[in-house]
Amino acid sequence: MGRFLDVIRSSGDIKNLGIQELSELAAEIRSEIISVVANNGGHLASNLGVVELTLALHSVFQPPRDKIIWDVGHQCYTHKIITGRKSVFHTIRTQGGLSGFSNPAESECDPFGTGHASTSISAALGIAAARDLKKEKFNIVSIIGDGALTGGMAFEALNNASSVTDNMIVVLNDNEMSINKNVGAFASYLSNIRLNPGFIKIRKDLRTLVKSIPAIGKKMLSAAERLEDQITYFFVPNVFFESLGFSYLGPFDGHNIEQLIATLEKAKHMEGNKLIHIVTQKGRGYSFAEKNSSKFHGIAPFHVESGQSREQNTSKIPTYTEVFGQALIRLAEQDKRITAITAAMTEGTGLKDFAKKFPDRFFDVGIAEEHAVTFAAAMASQGLRPVVALYSTFLQRGFDQLIHDVCIQKLPVTFAIDRAGVVGEDGATHNGVFDLSYLRMIPNLAVMAPGDEQELQAMLKTAVDYGGPVAIRYPRRSSVGLPVAESLPEIEVGKAEVLCEGKDLAILAIGSMVFPAMLAAEKLMSNGISATVVNMRSVKPLDGEMILHIVKKTRRIFTVEENVVSGGFGSSVAEFLQQNNIPVHITIIGLPDEFLPHAPQEMILEKYGLTPEGIVKAVLGSAN
Amino acid sequence: MGRFLDVIRSSGDIKNLGIQELSELAAEIRSEIISVVANNGGHLASNLGVVELTLALHSVFQPPRDKIIWDVGHQCYTHKIITGRKSVFHTIRTQGGLSGFSNPAESECDPFGTGHASTSISAALGIAAARDLKKEKFNIVSIIGDGALTGGMAFEALNNASSVTDNMIVVLNDNEMSINKNVGAFASYLSNIRLNPGFIKIRKDLRTLVKSIPAIGKKMLSAAERLEDQITYFFVPNVFFESLGFSYLGPFDGHNIEQLIATLEKAKHMEGNKLIHIVTQKGRGYSFAEKNSSKFHGIAPFHVESGQSREQNTSKIPTYTEVFGQALIRLAEQDKRITAITAAMTEGTGLKDFAKKFPDRFFDVGIAEEHAVTFAAAMASQGLRPVVALYSTFLQRGFDQLIHDVCIQKLPVTFAIDRAGVVGEDGATHNGVFDLSYLRMIPNLAVMAPGDEQELQAMLKTAVDYGGPVAIRYPRRSSVGLPVAESLPEIEVGKAEVLCEGKDLAILAIGSMVFPAMLAAEKLMSNGISATVVNMRSVKPLDGEMILHIVKKTRRIFTVEENVVSGGFGSSVAEFLQQNNIPVHITIIGLPDEFLPHAPQEMILEKYGLTPEGIVKAVLGSAN
Repeated sequence: MGRFLDVIRSSGDIKNLGIQELSELAAEIRSEIISVVANNGGHLASNLGVVELTLALHSVFQPPRDKIIWDVGHQCYTHKIITGRKSVFHTIRTQGGLSGFSNPAESECDPFGTGHASTSISAALGIAAARDLKKEKFNIVSIIGDGALTGGMAFEALNNASSVTDNMIVVLNDNEMSINKNVGAFASYLSNIRLNPGFIKIRKDLRTLVKSIPAIGKKMLSAAERLEDQITYFFVPNVFFESLGFSYLGPFDGHNIEQLIATLEKAKHMEGNKLIHIVTQKGRGYSFAEKNSSKFHGIAPFHVESGQSREQNTSKIPTYTEVFGQALIRLAEQDKRITAITAAMTEGTGLKDFAKKFPDRFFDVGIAEEHAVTFAAAMASQGLRPVVALYSTFLQRGFDQLIHDVCIQKLPVTFAIDRAGVVGEDGATHNGVFDLSYLRMIPNLAVMAPGDEQELQAMLKTAVDYGGPVAIRYPRRSSVGLPVAESLPEIEVGKAEVLCEGKDLAILAIGSMVFPAMLAAEKLMSNGISATVVNMRSVKPLDGEMILHIVKKTRRIFTVEENVVSGGFGSSVAEFLQQNNIPVHITIIGLPDEFLPHAPQEMILEKYGLTPEGIVKAVLGSAN
Repeated sequence: MGRFLDVIRSSGDIKNLGIQELSELAAEIRSEIISVVANNGGHLASNLGVVELTLALHSVFQPPRDKIIWDVGHQCYTHKIITGRKSVFHTIRTQGGLSGFSNPAESECDPFGTGHASTSISAALGIAAARDLKKEKFNIVSIIGDGALTGGMAFEALNNASSVTDNMIVVLNDNEMSINKNVGAFASYLSNIRLNPGFIKIRKDLRTLVKSIPAIGKKMLSAAERLEDQITYFFVPNVFFESLGFSYLGPFDGHNIEQLIATLEKAKHMEGNKLIHIVTQKGRGYSFAEKNSSKFHGIAPFHVESGQSREQNTSKIPTYTEVFGQALIRLAEQDKRITAITAAMTEGTGLKDFAKKFPDRFFDVGIAEEHAVTFAAAMASQGLRPVVALYSTFLQRGFDQLIHDVCIQKLPVTFAIDRAGVVGEDGATHNGVFDLSYLRMIPNLAVMAPGDEQELQAMLKTAVDYGGPVAIRYPRRSSVGLPVAESLPEIEVGKAEVLCEGKDLAILAIGSMVFPAMLAAEKLMSNGISATVVNMRSVKPLDGEMILHIVKKTRRIFTVEENVVSGGFGSSVAEFLQQNNIPVHITIIGLPDEFLPHAPQEMILEKYGLTPEGIVKAVLGSAN
């Protein structure tokens, strides 16, 4: 792997290296990370940005005794490599291999599991509270990006910090962006600090100045003396953090190991809660990633030499994400009421072109799902038709706002829920397998899922005109491959569609499972079994008429969904049957009541029978 | 009602009054609010604090054209009175009467519905975005308390504000507390501002000072000049808000109508986003409420003369809240691992005594449910056994953290979920009727509900020792009236209990519906029908063995729960039956798929059959 990397077996070994050696180690680690991510895919730019920081942290602190908590955890590759996971680092994000995020199950050097943004300060405080109660002594450092800092819970934690402990360190890893270019007042504020490193000097100078003026009026002098602390306080360019009770250190160059070590050492011995502001470069050391850190934030396998994707996407079948983005542009061209809102997922949700085409109607609110949802609700209250595009797993952050601000008021907000279902390599923290359950229980909300990309387009148009809240969920996957529908017929909300008629049994499928259900029906046909396949289209309102129609024809019914069985689509069918006193047995095919490990989507879908073959197997194996 | 109040028919009428008249009107309104709340119960202290502010707002702005958004909305009584709802104000919080919060269905002067804290800035921004897009002109003001400002989404919105609009006003209504005494660094920061009104003067003085120094070095002078703007900036005691892009005005006396009007007028004509900081006194003008604003935050009917409750609670049956609070103290005395966490609900969740007895082990994190949950998770990761006490409706705010930080890691956090089920007069925004649905879909989480107060005590002990996450939900209600259990036997998680055996049918009840189910069985007996009643105790794990046992004895099964039917307890039983291929019909008794209006708890429970009589009726009316 490299001269220095070879000898690093655990965090402690870092401490034997001098500055020059650490720099060489950093280069070796970068090379290792680039090569492994080129193979496996993963988060690249964020990891390349914190190599020096990680080495400095491990030079100064002693995990697992000291606790280092990486916010999100998508930047902890160096941390993994130097905490005993070097030999298995090549397995990262593969089935059975290392997770792409912090994971206590992998190493006691990961004190807390992460994946979603903005949790690290809360986690650090919880650990600090426990430490202080147990009268233990160790250091706690959380490292949070400027993007993650815009998430409300990070602020909640900063505000609570001084009430909980007086001994923790927050490292603000300021790389001037979250996944996309950072937005918001706070970003400008940080940028002001970055652009004015002289501030700290001036503060010092002015303080001296006030003290040294000879011809000062008596009253003024006394006021100046009395308020010296406060004056100092207000001269510091870090008032935001100071006002929250943190001592501010910075800004520092996040790639200068020597300075980082000195600063961390200083902070370790300072009293109180400290915030260290460092500035790093995303993608540092790999030119393609330096130039396009958004692309290399989370990346599929690529060629190291060219930075180009390894995938030969010759099929050119667009993803659901792409279909959504283009469909929304077409709708917005005709309907001025449409706006688009996302929370630092512009590219991920396919809104990049929309943002370019309609800059006034596009709102990236930063990592701030709670705000995003209520913000959209209020727009809708004024006659607009906002479309909120989020990943399923992150919509969980806006759950209360969805209920309280959107659905109680029946406001016409459309939720375009991307990455619903199994997401694959990002694993348990990122799977979007709960939304059908947590959405269908909300009054006034229509919950739909398209069976193919044309239906996604149609549903989107339907949703915008519906006059109430609508959620449309679709997977992180290529669509079926149908041509783009230029005209977009609306769909009657709550109306299912029979895709094929068979006499032996019926498969009620929702969303991403509609197409596999059709393929299953074909396979069953070759076994001499004829199946009806129904594209249910919406979980809520549920098409009760269709279900009544089906049970008249067959008593052998299967439901299939890419969602947990608990409380999901099949559950809603079971509920309906009970409430209508229809004694029919249904077999519910879906995901189990457990958090799924990271592995390729196909592997997980196959394991749980969410494939044509899996559905066939369930049918053939069923009792009657 | 009063000389001036009589002539106020709409917001516009306020504008005809002079300062002295407005003061008299304020007194009349206070008297009206005190008298109505004394009758109906409601939020008193917060409303008495903003009478002058409300009159000033209506003097300067013109609703419904201008939008006034009250955060939480529990302080909008004056606003309601002067916007055409005076004649029905006496109906507030009664069935069919006015809501206790802002409600667009009542008046176009309420532009956005509220109830939960910290949403108003997001709402204002959404309205501003729509206004700006439509090129309309009007003013938007959101009024947020210092307590609500600690909620993360308020920060998310503040951060996003300058990206969205340059014309909105936030009024920070600083009364030095949320529901309880405010906590956190931000509160100290505001308090510093309040205590040092001289800051603004000193800023001016120092600026003059720097400019006027004769014997200044050339370099220093140039630096000072160049940075004059920034220096000014950092002298201002409002750096927090200025750093987020708001012009800060304040602090002002929130009971000085003249000054308030002048300030609001000024802000109306200033460019950019403005934050006006006013200091008000909760309970202002009613001595009992001034002295104990926590008690009079939300209060049951009381005697105006004495401030004493009208209820003659002779029965002395403790509420579930009280039982929880005392039980937790007893457990904590024996188990040092136990800590308690709440989010500005110390009294409401019964933790007041715990906080006094174990100040080191008690954490009120402010209005910050997201942080509260992750903070607890991290404590649990260090071997503690945190108990998070929240209202059901507010746990929705920590939904993602519950999944992502607690349950994925299987951390032993106990959630004591108060006000689960129907809450009554607070209405749709505050009902806790979804938790069984949104909790049971989460892997690794045990979801329990006690049938009586002894079981609550036992479940609490069980939960703390369980070794994984547990949610215990109980209603806002008096308990059954059983004696306090000094020894607390544990309960086997996932084991139901047969309370009485009958041959004709079985009622599977959960939590608050166990006792009504027993009473129903008694009543059925007098109709010659013998019913088995099962206390299911937990929705998850569901006691499948018990269900199998029951279906062997009877095919006539009823489930009953104080939760929406969608995805709830009955739904989980239906799911279980389908997955085990048991063709049994069950009747699911629960709440409908709609948001329930405000009305007394008993009235709503009766309406939906969640009473002994309702259960009897369901049984007698069922088909077989």
